[in-house]
Amino acid sequence: MSAVPTTSRRPSLPGASRPADRAALVDGLRASLDAGAAEVRDECRALDVEALAPAAEPLPMEEHRARVTAQLASLAGRSFVADGFPEHQGGTGRYARAVEAFEMLGHTDLSLFVKAGVQWGLFGGAVSLLGTERHDHLLPRIISGELQGCFAMTETGHGSDVQRLETTATYDPATDEIVVHSPGPGARKDYIGNAARDGHLAAVFAQLVVGEEQHGVHCVLVPIRDDAGHPASGVTVGDDGAKLGLGGVDNGRLSFDHVRVPRTNLLGRYGDVNEHGVYSSPIENPSRRFFTMLGTLVRGRISVAGGAGAAARTALTVATRYGDARRQFDAPGRDAEAALLDYRTHQRRLLPRIATAYALQFAQHDLVDAMDDVLSGRVADEGDRRRLEARAAGLKAVTTRHTTDTVQECREACGGAGYLWANRLAATKSDTDIFTTFEGDNTVLLQLVAKSLLAEYRSTFGDLDTLGIVRFGARLTAGTFVERSAARALVQRLVDATPGREDEVVFAARATQLSLLREREEHLVEGVARRLRRADAPGVDAFEAFNSCQDHLVEAANAHVDRLVLESFATAVERCDDPDVARVLGRVCDLHALSTIERHKGWYLEHDRLGASRTKAVTALVNELCAELRPLATVLVDAFGIPEAWLRTEMLEGDTVG
Amino acid sequence: MSAVPTTSRRPSLPGASRPADRAALVDGLRASLDAGAAEVRDECRALDVEALAPAAEPLPMEEHRARVTAQLASLAGRSFVADGFPEHQGGTGRYARAVEAFEMLGHTDLSLFVKAGVQWGLFGGAVSLLGTERHDHLLPRIISGELQGCFAMTETGHGSDVQRLETTATYDPATDEIVVHSPGPGARKDYIGNAARDGHLAAVFAQLVVGEEQHGVHCVLVPIRDDAGHPASGVTVGDDGAKLGLGGVDNGRLSFDHVRVPRTNLLGRYGDVNEHGVYSSPIENPSRRFFTMLGTLVRGRISVAGGAGAAARTALTVATRYGDARRQFDAPGRDAEAALLDYRTHQRRLLPRIATAYALQFAQHDLVDAMDDVLSGRVADEGDRRRLEARAAGLKAVTTRHTTDTVQECREACGGAGYLWANRLAATKSDTDIFTTFEGDNTVLLQLVAKSLLAEYRSTFGDLDTLGIVRFGARLTAGTFVERSAARALVQRLVDATPGREDEVVFAARATQLSLLREREEHLVEGVARRLRRADAPGVDAFEAFNSCQDHLVEAANAHVDRLVLESFATAVERCDDPDVARVLGRVCDLHALSTIERHKGWYLEHDRLGASRTKAVTALVNELCAELRPLATVLVDAFGIPEAWLRTEMLEGDTVG
Repeated sequence: MSAVPTTSRRPSLPGASRPADRAALVDGLRASLDAGAAEVRDECRALDVEALAPAAEPLPMEEHRARVTAQLASLAGRSFVADGFPEHQGGTGRYARAVEAFEMLGHTDLSLFVKAGVQWGLFGGAVSLLGTERHDHLLPRIISGELQGCFAMTETGHGSDVQRLETTATYDPATDEIVVHSPGPGARKDYIGNAARDGHLAAVFAQLVVGEEQHGVHCVLVPIRDDAGHPASGVTVGDDGAKLGLGGVDNGRLSFDHVRVPRTNLLGRYGDVNEHGVYSSPIENPSRRFFTMLGTLVRGRISVAGGAGAAARTALTVATRYGDARRQFDAPGRDAEAALLDYRTHQRRLLPRIATAYALQFAQHDLVDAMDDVLSGRVADEGDRRRLEARAAGLKAVTTRHTTDTVQECREACGGAGYLWANRLAATKSDTDIFTTFEGDNTVLLQLVAKSLLAEYRSTFGDLDTLGIVRFGARLTAGTFVERSAARALVQRLVDATPGREDEVVFAARATQLSLLREREEHLVEGVARRLRRADAPGVDAFEAFNSCQDHLVEAANAHVDRLVLESFATAVERCDDPDVARVLGRVCDLHALSTIERHKGWYLEHDRLGASRTKAVTALVNELCAELRPLATVLVDAFGIPEAWLRTEMLEGDTVG
Repeated sequence: MSAVPTTSRRPSLPGASRPADRAALVDGLRASLDAGAAEVRDECRALDVEALAPAAEPLPMEEHRARVTAQLASLAGRSFVADGFPEHQGGTGRYARAVEAFEMLGHTDLSLFVKAGVQWGLFGGAVSLLGTERHDHLLPRIISGELQGCFAMTETGHGSDVQRLETTATYDPATDEIVVHSPGPGARKDYIGNAARDGHLAAVFAQLVVGEEQHGVHCVLVPIRDDAGHPASGVTVGDDGAKLGLGGVDNGRLSFDHVRVPRTNLLGRYGDVNEHGVYSSPIENPSRRFFTMLGTLVRGRISVAGGAGAAARTALTVATRYGDARRQFDAPGRDAEAALLDYRTHQRRLLPRIATAYALQFAQHDLVDAMDDVLSGRVADEGDRRRLEARAAGLKAVTTRHTTDTVQECREACGGAGYLWANRLAATKSDTDIFTTFEGDNTVLLQLVAKSLLAEYRSTFGDLDTLGIVRFGARLTAGTFVERSAARALVQRLVDATPGREDEVVFAARATQLSLLREREEHLVEGVARRLRRADAPGVDAFEAFNSCQDHLVEAANAHVDRLVLESFATAVERCDDPDVARVLGRVCDLHALSTIERHKGWYLEHDRLGASRTKAVTALVNELCAELRPLATVLVDAFGIPEAWLRTEMLEGDTVG
């Protein structure tokens, strides 16, 4: 792609006033958004959408739980459930397909999405990925929903700091059993989905003790209920009760009083105890072992990012249709009242967020594909696995933040109508709120991303002098350091084609957009690496030194994810071979890129990457793009392809009369 | 006050490790925060706080409504209810006291706060302020709660655009009655508090028609239920049903089918119909009449700002205590795990928001005092009234935005514990969400503020040339243009004492902080005035021209409110005569001011008001202030003085064990 003139001189966007043109555009954009997942998404769209639709009004907690349990059971026979497991465990090993299908559930009642994630993603995933052959027989019953389970990791005392969990799993050679125990109130497992009502078997994370030796956190299967549904002996089950949202998920608490299970209940793939009571592990280093175990569970974070993205698209669809239909105030100099979306402030609320929703959808597909490579074993390099984990952590943080912000903005953009339960926004807002916390608090996750960037930085450039660090920037996107994504070659080609910074048209060039995001990432990573290196000096208070870099770390991680996301979008635009659709997609990509740059204009100015006239030009372009895309606003959201029964746009009914 | 050195060279803050020192500091800060409202606030703190506390779990809608109705009845005899009405209507005319007391209800179940606001603020306020002597007899029954009512303004078709309401009130000379009618579905009154269950009389806003003539929107009292609670003849009552929050408020819908009421039901203070069927008004111009009528209802917006501020303080108290108690992750180089609040990212989440909560509390007091001047008649100038309305609109928008943002951040800062209904955050989040919309959508309100600024600008400088416009800046804070607040003299003194921009210490000087906020306001107001003037040129599309300035208008209004808020805080610091308390308050004010400036660093750089080294220094100072105030974090929130029963910090119970 070569330099493109400013939007006003660019070829105008295809019209959508004729129904046939509109439908073609919606279909084309949808095909692009669905990408390789089109077939499984259409399968989901053909489900009994009425039965899976969210309840029309808030249900009492127990009723809601029962409803979601029944909805879950109705999904159990679907092919996409088995897709999440390998063939030798009764599945089909089509991991990407499974995650893409679950993402569609993010448009239904999010309690169903979470409940399915607990049963098949977390609980099933733990048995599948941490267990050994002796656990494989459980999986067909897990896939069918006959055996319901929990993923019991988080404790009251420790949430994010999993390595310090207090629950113990002590091997007793006398009986060849493992004794699972909660030594104090902080060891209580908390917020555990499926624990309060439905779960019968729990995958419990605990400190494994064999003989005198502590082997760190491992996972043990513990029955928590008998067939009659009563708590198993020694297990105390509590109910977390009502929550801000997700009322259909039975989160609960589990405590264990010296509960004995057979030794073989240890999910021993990464650390096992044999019949002689001897511990062994394929991974010597306990810390590496721990992080490898956690790393296998990456699918959970990826699924949360997917569901969060879906929820944001639901909200944007509702709010955009409302903004397009509802009219308020006379438009000066015009005959009719203007639609809300004709106002710049309203366009500013919704259109850049629609653009970012597109960007995140493409980034999510790329992430899911990378996950599929790793889970299927096609990619087995440890570095690739680590990069996948960092990318999953980063995209989960950025997408869930986008969702919280977007759903809020959509609610406000619908005024009082957005506050009524009768539309989808109220539940979507309450339900998604916790997404920023679960599967890892976002602030903690972004620090993980930054640390992973720094680890790569150090392993590559650890002993370089200042000049070496400066050169690091040039290499950052050159393949040594960043993940090898399909976007790589393209991006390099685009960057090479940068037309220089002398022209006002520069911001409309994809290459400029990519360069700006890359520069910010490089500078932030280099800077924090320098600061942390200084912190290693003798006499420096290590905590203070680390702590003073913490916001810098988080910013570097955000900048990294911003760059990856834009690369995914740029690649998707290039991939599109329908010229009309590609033109629209390109303009949406511009809006995403430029509003990202605008959000960080303080940084660009402060670091002399852009002058004041340039940052003002960015703002002007964002406004221009909003106006240009406004006539296509409902086209852009219809292309999300959300079944009408899952949208519930009753709020629009009385409103076009105004 | 003269220039102060950077924080590190400033006298250190008083300690709070000894219980007596801590208590003295809490008391001193509370006295400062309560200011003139200390007595009525203590009266509220001495209420039966258990009975007024929010329910421990979400209640079914009807049960919640009944509970709130009962709580409301228990408040009816309190002196602060009568305080909101003049003596000749059975009140005491202590308006500030009434609003300050309602603000305290913002710490209880917010359904109670809203329900009280509907009954006494909106419905009672309409009868009191728009009615004539013939309606005075109703007020004792409204004050006592015997007569419950609604404020029926918003329609399905028109929310913000009140002037275009569709409901009609037509005078029928044949029977000397007024016929209230909803001509279509868009005319349906919607989201009306007290309509679905409890209200018997509604203050209905409708287009008044007398003979052939339309007189614009007026307010008519219409009975909507009979004594048995059934809808009155011709009145259709609907229920808005479940909402995202505020489950205890019975919002509903009202439609009127040629409902006849006596002519004397017209609340005729600003436009009446006499026994001969002749319309008259003390205000000739219909538009001015309309805005005068709306203006009398300013108390509603002021109360919403107060309640929103209170809710943010509730959330900050819960989250700060949690962040102080909960420990996660080993602190490198230290023996113990660090408390969440020891981490910079966590300090950044909470401390600047605590500082802004202080700032908004002081601004709220000043606003309430100005309102008291107007309602009591001590100030009768129309300009002062208009300025009060603009200030109320602006502070409502800024405070409710702060609240939505702060409650969200507090929820996330408490992780999973913040999501459980058992703590106050879940309900606070759901309940306050609509505050950005009701009593005026924030985006619309900020445009009102900007238009008011521009009106003053034009009336003062309308025919000036460019030089005149430039000089406008100098006059902006010199008394011609801005409201005459108590802060004026002080601010001028501080600005005069500016030590120049040459020194790094400059940001710690209040004068610098004030100047920076003022410069931003001036520049934005001048700029938008220039742009709108150009838009007046012939051949310009008026809608496009206005629309392209819309974001600029909103930014100007925000900058205006930012400046007012900082002035209030600066004045409060000066007023404080306890040196220890003043030192703490001063530092909190610094944090508020500098984090406000930091948020707009892009603007300051883009407009060459600050260089890059200066904006970086601001960021460094914000970090330093966070670290410095961290040991006093729980002192700062305890000073909010919220009864423990209204905080419900169960979430902390299991958490200090970790």
